[in-house]
Amino acid sequence: MHFYSDNVAPVHPAVFAAMQAADTVDSGYDGDALSKALDARFSALFGREVAALWMPTGTVANSIALASICPPYGGVICHQEAHIQNDECGAPEFYTHGAKLLLAGGADAKMTPETVAAVADAIADDVHRVQPHALSLTNATELGTVYTPDQVRALAALAKARGWRVHMDGARLANAIVHLGCTVADLVEGVDVLSFGFVKNGGMSAEALVFFDPALADDARRRRKRGGHLLSKGRYLAAQIHAMLEDDLWLANARAANAAAAELARAATGRLVHPVEANELFLRMTPEEAARLRAKGFGFYDWSDGVIRLVTHWANPIDDAQALAEAITALS
Amino acid sequence: MHFYSDNVAPVHPAVFAAMQAADTVDSGYDGDALSKALDARFSALFGREVAALWMPTGTVANSIALASICPPYGGVICHQEAHIQNDECGAPEFYTHGAKLLLAGGADAKMTPETVAAVADAIADDVHRVQPHALSLTNATELGTVYTPDQVRALAALAKARGWRVHMDGARLANAIVHLGCTVADLVEGVDVLSFGFVKNGGMSAEALVFFDPALADDARRRRKRGGHLLSKGRYLAAQIHAMLEDDLWLANARAANAAAAELARAATGRLVHPVEANELFLRMTPEEAARLRAKGFGFYDWSDGVIRLVTHWANPIDDAQALAEAITALS
Amino acid sequence: MHFYSDNVAPVHPAVFAAMQAADTVDSGYDGDALSKALDARFSALFGREVAALWMPTGTVANSIALASICPPYGGVICHQEAHIQNDECGAPEFYTHGAKLLLAGGADAKMTPETVAAVADAIADDVHRVQPHALSLTNATELGTVYTPDQVRALAALAKARGWRVHMDGARLANAIVHLGCTVADLVEGVDVLSFGFVKNGGMSAEALVFFDPALADDARRRRKRGGHLLSKGRYLAAQIHAMLEDDLWLANARAANAAAAELARAATGRLVHPVEANELFLRMTPEEAARLRAKGFGFYDWSDGVIRLVTHWANPIDDAQALAEAITALS
Amino acid sequence: MHFYSDNVAPVHPAVFAAMQAADTVDSGYDGDALSKALDARFSALFGREVAALWMPTGTVANSIALASICPPYGGVICHQEAHIQNDECGAPEFYTHGAKLLLAGGADAKMTPETVAAVADAIADDVHRVQPHALSLTNATELGTVYTPDQVRALAALAKARGWRVHMDGARLANAIVHLGCTVADLVEGVDVLSFGFVKNGGMSAEALVFFDPALADDARRRRKRGGHLLSKGRYLAAQIHAMLEDDLWLANARAANAAAAELARAATGRLVHPVEANELFLRMTPEEAARLRAKGFGFYDWSDGVIRLVTHWANPIDDAQALAEAITALS
Repeated sequence: MHFYSDNVAPVHPAVFAAMQAADTVDSGYDGDALSKALDARFSALFGREVAALWMPTGTVANSIALASICPPYGGVICHQEAHIQNDECGAPEFYTHGAKLLLAGGADAKMTPETVAAVADAIADDVHRVQPHALSLTNATELGTVYTPDQVRALAALAKARGWRVHMDGARLANAIVHLGCTVADLVEGVDVLSFGFVKNGGMSAEALVFFDPALADDARRRRKRGGHLLSKGRYLAAQIHAMLEDDLWLANARAANAAAAELARAATGRLVHPVEANELFLRMTPEEAARLRAKGFGFYDWSDGVIRLVTHWANPIDDAQALAEAITALS
Repeated sequence: MHFYSDNVAPVHPAVFAAMQAADTVDSGYDGDALSKALDARFSALFGREVAALWMPTGTVANSIALASICPPYGGVICHQEAHIQNDECGAPEFYTHGAKLLLAGGADAKMTPETVAAVADAIADDVHRVQPHALSLTNATELGTVYTPDQVRALAALAKARGWRVHMDGARLANAIVHLGCTVADLVEGVDVLSFGFVKNGGMSAEALVFFDPALADDARRRRKRGGHLLSKGRYLAAQIHAMLEDDLWLANARAANAAAAELARAATGRLVHPVEANELFLRMTPEEAARLRAKGFGFYDWSDGVIRLVTHWANPIDDAQALAEAITALS
Repeated sequence: MHFYSDNVAPVHPAVFAAMQAADTVDSGYDGDALSKALDARFSALFGREVAALWMPTGTVANSIALASICPPYGGVICHQEAHIQNDECGAPEFYTHGAKLLLAGGADAKMTPETVAAVADAIADDVHRVQPHALSLTNATELGTVYTPDQVRALAALAKARGWRVHMDGARLANAIVHLGCTVADLVEGVDVLSFGFVKNGGMSAEALVFFDPALADDARRRRKRGGHLLSKGRYLAAQIHAMLEDDLWLANARAANAAAAELARAATGRLVHPVEANELFLRMTPEEAARLRAKGFGFYDWSDGVIRLVTHWANPIDDAQALAEAITALS
Repeated sequence: MHFYSDNVAPVHPAVFAAMQAADTVDSGYDGDALSKALDARFSALFGREVAALWMPTGTVANSIALASICPPYGGVICHQEAHIQNDECGAPEFYTHGAKLLLAGGADAKMTPETVAAVADAIADDVHRVQPHALSLTNATELGTVYTPDQVRALAALAKARGWRVHMDGARLANAIVHLGCTVADLVEGVDVLSFGFVKNGGMSAEALVFFDPALADDARRRRKRGGHLLSKGRYLAAQIHAMLEDDLWLANARAANAAAAELARAATGRLVHPVEANELFLRMTPEEAARLRAKGFGFYDWSDGVIRLVTHWANPIDDAQALAEAITALS
């Protein structure tokens, strides 16, 4: 009964089936029919023309996204809790050739126009300071909270007014969509490039990098090759993405994960450090309490002093979540 | 009946089975049991302690290998036909942060101590010139030829005498081994780091980067993460490699590919541009002749004026190869 | 009567004279006698064997220093007010190929072992986080304060205990030395590499980069060339440094600058935002007061809301400083 | 009587005088009147609007030029003898973040449309190959020869037709102009960015980087700062350039250098390896002959087996050149 991370979830059977079916596809790199169909598939999903590239990890999707909208001497404003800042070993700096992450604050890992403007306004407009060129927001956030469409629009409007491009890290985009009940198109208004995550949600090794300005994609294709990410058998990645989108599997999987999280949240109301809007929970808990849960067979990580993190995923049996919910309730 | 590339071969069923079995493995990144077992598995294979990391592509394996043995201001001597020079969109320059490839000649895409020394000796030992720090050889080569263990040793000895490290690009290492009838350990004497290919030989998306000096691997692990190549579900990559090594599947697959190539070579003796020692053939052929083959349903690429390339792989039916051999014979 | 910056000070006549004398030196790059004498000259100054390279700017001195002690995937802890963070347009990221600056706090732009440890302790020791490899401190600081030898030693001891290297940005090192009354050797105990500034103190275009571990210098020489900083007529840079060291001109110049600052500080006691320990003052002042000073012919920059910055230099006539001091006194 | 290199020439007295006059200029970096006047001065010289930035070395001028016209994943076609390929320790790769130099041939270090097209035509237009984005030519060349305006136009036309930008390395541009008797504007038709050299021709530490498309200059200004090349006392660099342009000092100096070279060429007609069109000569000479010249007090470098190089400069006494010419004549 593990709640360590959505990374440890198995691959959905439909994804595996699609990969095996790709065995008969016979062109290399991204020249196969499955890869070539991605642009159209995502264009249909978003209701406008986009370019979509498979990427093996969210880290490279984020990093190439940033490289495509920020020069080496520029800066990207992001939340100080952002994955690109804390969990990618400097991959954004690597792919952008040294651009600087400029850190904004905001409760629950969410930037606001005010916190973003505060960062930008403190930077003199001269050649000595790294100037902001882009804004990167994560939705759902690293702390399990969600930007609403209005909040995204407000940040994108600020960015546009200042001449910046906008990136969204959507490693857990599906969880955000399900929480909001909006369409995916609603949630990316004003966004220039989106890292659309599937791996945490039932996939194996394929994320999509979606450019709402398709003109940016040629540069990204070359950075993908140059980064060693143009797999020679790319058809097996494209197949995963198609399988995830087929019959809205991505939404069904996210719904299951969010439901498990909600089950836990109900049991832990008094302990929640942040609102539970996706599939991550941060709970105040003493080491002794945590030990009691672990003794019952529940696995999870300590997050910080007196706080544990629980992550649910598409394959968590609802029984497991209910059992953990009961165990949490029983602590008090 | 396609002879375009070994990239279009399907994934071997045993590889798929191993990946599905990895569903139950429950730790992220490379913390799972399968990934952690790679060091021991390759140490056993080579008969000495090595460190082995999975990598999603040969391009990144090569590039991180070079970054681990050459500083940004250094140079890597390689053959002018090398994949790292011609087919990776500058990935080596990206990962090394701008190191320079220094191009050596040699018949059949094989460097010799003489051609390597000629490059090095022309470089004045001062701060204005990029100094060689490493030698990179490809075995089997881009032109389907093979360095013998003695030839590798001679090049490695030269490198050692000059203070350089040695990298081997083994995208088709299995084909070389099978051709030579030697052990894999025999073929890497003096090599510091090896890109051990599996994808062209029945795998899907996992190569191994093997460090014969395990102390180099920590740096490489960070470059892998930083390059966006530390897949969160790395267990599915490790599983592929284990499956390929199990019962010497990698050698069996290479034997099948080489056998098909040999079948074709026998039929094309008078047309061969290079010796056929692995699974690639380069044939002199007029456009009219090529058209006749294509009309019969055989697929392959033109290589240069009057030369076509044929590539065989583990899953080519021997009947297809025989049919093509007969069709080539019939041309004359 | 300008107090804008020590960058606008003229070049000291002795420096000019030395440059003209270098006309007769007849070897290019750093092969001339003046450049070759730097190692010995700085070794004598520090009382131990060092390697010293001229550099055209403090920015490149700092950046190459960091590149020589931190890998691309590493981090450098520095104060959030550090010049390398705020005023070099990402030069450290450029020269280190994307290393990350990790920002520590501390009053008056000075880090303490506690603020440094707080940054480091929050970084999990895994491959996902950028790990600290170096500590960079500025002395005198960007806010005109000075680390004492004991304070430097304490920070260096912490760094050493954690396996980090230490860089000191000494753009205004002379001002710190003069304030402390110590020797320059006293102030760099535990430091691995020092950017030794001369340009703000009477020079024109030559700083020294001093390696206390001379083995690091070869790498730095190549990075200097590769950065386009190996001037073909390097003798004119070496000449500047020799002139500054001759008869302790560097100390005399710093004494003059500090004296002017002290004159101003006495007049502004109640307005000082930070202690005045070098040649920079930060004064609380209303816009109206600032306007009154400017109307009297005094030039200076606003620093932030309600705060102005005054910088003195070796060539400020003491009469000017006294006049400004009186004008400040007259404000209240 | 040294003919080693124009790098060892002294600084022209007018340049020194202008630097001393810059002492009274009172703004930092490139905000001073002298730096700000460069755009207008070079616009007048070229008869059209340009942007001109001082740079401390030709290496950084070339490298930033290339970075401004070629992306990290692109390539720059240049002659295999080019300074950017052989003598800058990888600075172009550093500033472009890893772009690749693609080497063309051509007699006397001069590319032709044919040799350039041969390089480009061999590169398949796909994502695996580094694609050419720019052409860089050197005038005068590394071997003392000169492209005529027609030859430059032909190369620029080819570049334009293929969508590439054009860079000219003019480290010895003055020598080429003087040889050709054309205007500087004639010689840069079709060029996008020019490294305009002064240091080899009487300057100390200032070259000009001239953008014929001023829109490219903002990017270059940031790369200059980021490269550590924005000297805080930039006025002393701007002053050098103004002094060199004043009353066509740059042309007078180049005339003197070329005249000395011509004197030597006349004496060495039968020995010349390349035409003598600027201030460099390459002479066939046995070691014994070279020793005889050296015994008479003439200094110069061996270039390759049986070839010596002589370089003249603005300050070579014509008597020295005549003496060497006589000594060469006496050898036969």
